[in-house]
Amino acid sequence: MDVTKKMTAQWSKVGILGVGLLGGSVAKAVRSIFPEVQICGWGRSQDNLERAIELNIIDEGSLELQDAVERADLLVVATPVQKIVETLNLAAPLLDPGCLIVDVGSTKATIVAQASGLPWSHQFCPCHPIAGSEKSGAQHASSDLFRGKTVVLTPMDSTSPKTVAGADLLWRLMGASTVYMTPDAHDAALATTSHLPHMIAAALALGTSSDLLPLVGSGWSDTTRVAAGDPALWRQIIQENQTDALHTMRRFATIWANMIDAVQREDFDAIEKMLEEGKQIRDAVGNRHTSGK
Amino acid sequence: MDVTKKMTAQWSKVGILGVGLLGGSVAKAVRSIFPEVQICGWGRSQDNLERAIELNIIDEGSLELQDAVERADLLVVATPVQKIVETLNLAAPLLDPGCLIVDVGSTKATIVAQASGLPWSHQFCPCHPIAGSEKSGAQHASSDLFRGKTVVLTPMDSTSPKTVAGADLLWRLMGASTVYMTPDAHDAALATTSHLPHMIAAALALGTSSDLLPLVGSGWSDTTRVAAGDPALWRQIIQENQTDALHTMRRFATIWANMIDAVQREDFDAIEKMLEEGKQIRDAVGNRHTSGK
Repeated sequence: MDVTKKMTAQWSKVGILGVGLLGGSVAKAVRSIFPEVQICGWGRSQDNLERAIELNIIDEGSLELQDAVERADLLVVATPVQKIVETLNLAAPLLDPGCLIVDVGSTKATIVAQASGLPWSHQFCPCHPIAGSEKSGAQHASSDLFRGKTVVLTPMDSTSPKTVAGADLLWRLMGASTVYMTPDAHDAALATTSHLPHMIAAALALGTSSDLLPLVGSGWSDTTRVAAGDPALWRQIIQENQTDALHTMRRFATIWANMIDAVQREDFDAIEKMLEEGKQIRDAVGNRHTSGK
Repeated sequence: MDVTKKMTAQWSKVGILGVGLLGGSVAKAVRSIFPEVQICGWGRSQDNLERAIELNIIDEGSLELQDAVERADLLVVATPVQKIVETLNLAAPLLDPGCLIVDVGSTKATIVAQASGLPWSHQFCPCHPIAGSEKSGAQHASSDLFRGKTVVLTPMDSTSPKTVAGADLLWRLMGASTVYMTPDAHDAALATTSHLPHMIAAALALGTSSDLLPLVGSGWSDTTRVAAGDPALWRQIIQENQTDALHTMRRFATIWANMIDAVQREDFDAIEKMLEEGKQIRDAVGNRHTSGK
């Protein structure tokens, strides 16, 4: 409780840069913990900001970065990944020196490489909450989006210890657990655990001709669910993480070729063995990750 | 209501051959419509039959086919696909001439080829309810499993019109809609809409090393959910539908190679276009298929 009270005093104005699913969910979660906090959203669309105000996600919305950044003691950068450092460079002259900055970008190596050593970088802890949905937009935001989820923190050499501690506390207050990784290790891991499933889901959907759609069941629907995600956002993620994505996509191609080979050779013992190994890995995860729907 | 009353009179004893998820769900659905019906389950495991009796899924259970088949006016064959025709050949001498026989097998061409023209084939309507779960066993059976789902009927030349009408009514009473296909068209379609997603999910799970599992989110979990299914059952399905499975798996390999090629060439416009096409197909299905979890 002491910690919470201290943080209430510390975070009196929160700036949300990009009020979509993730930015909106952080806003709602922060407000549920600190009801008195003032939340200002910044974005490119007046309509979106107005809707977020109506939904009580943000108190104010502005197309001017200044309004969200000035006097903020917490900045959450939830723009598309390729805009994060650019946005922070624009915000830099307006930053309060005590402001904690976190982002929610799905890739980390490029952001860290760009931000390391910049004047504001001691205030910035790069973060990736492994949480989301195939649905985008603030209207799908939830104060519980991060509850029970994992957030990867990839602090830079220039990130101050106080900043790391503040970011860690922020996510834990929202119900997440935190882990620390290097940006490269993060991107390599997420290429397999997140970017690869997305590409696979898209490829499966893409390869299903529309006349077959009346014959899909829950298996197809689950396997393709994330393919409903925003193509422009995912394009950026793959672009940012090209080398790791390519590596894991090629590994999958090899596994797939082995499966095709076994079916062709009518080696159904080998098929059953592969299915069994896949089941063991899937069973190890169980239902601890709820569906994004 | 007239129809229901007529059917109540007609189906007084139901035999469930194989009391797993699907057989158990048919039993529960039939009982919810016709509370007076007597349901006898047949299977290889005394323990499983006793559990199904305790769960009030079946009234009686027997390891002797005779007990479930004799005097039955509805037989539901829910064994693994490769045992369906074999089981019905064993049941044949015991069959009531007015008994309606349906199966729930995931592939249809082999079953139809084996059953066509056999003495009991006029009583048999091959069926595939596109419903299921990665969970197996009668303990997960639900009287609502077929509600809102599609059941494909692939009647044979030797199937009597009365049998087709009875099977069609049975599934519609359980809340499903029915469609008619040739066995070959069914198997080709389901290779893409069901067998392919299963193999893909298994390959993705298989390719995720266990040290990465703490970093998976709902995307990975949804995309791999069906990989938790029974490997022995799925081995049979792929084996029965080898040619179509191979064809659709190769098509997927081509799409996947194109994606890899685009990432390698850094042609992210092409990537976004593929993601957009996948999203359009996925969006067309939406949430009409609930997750099997």
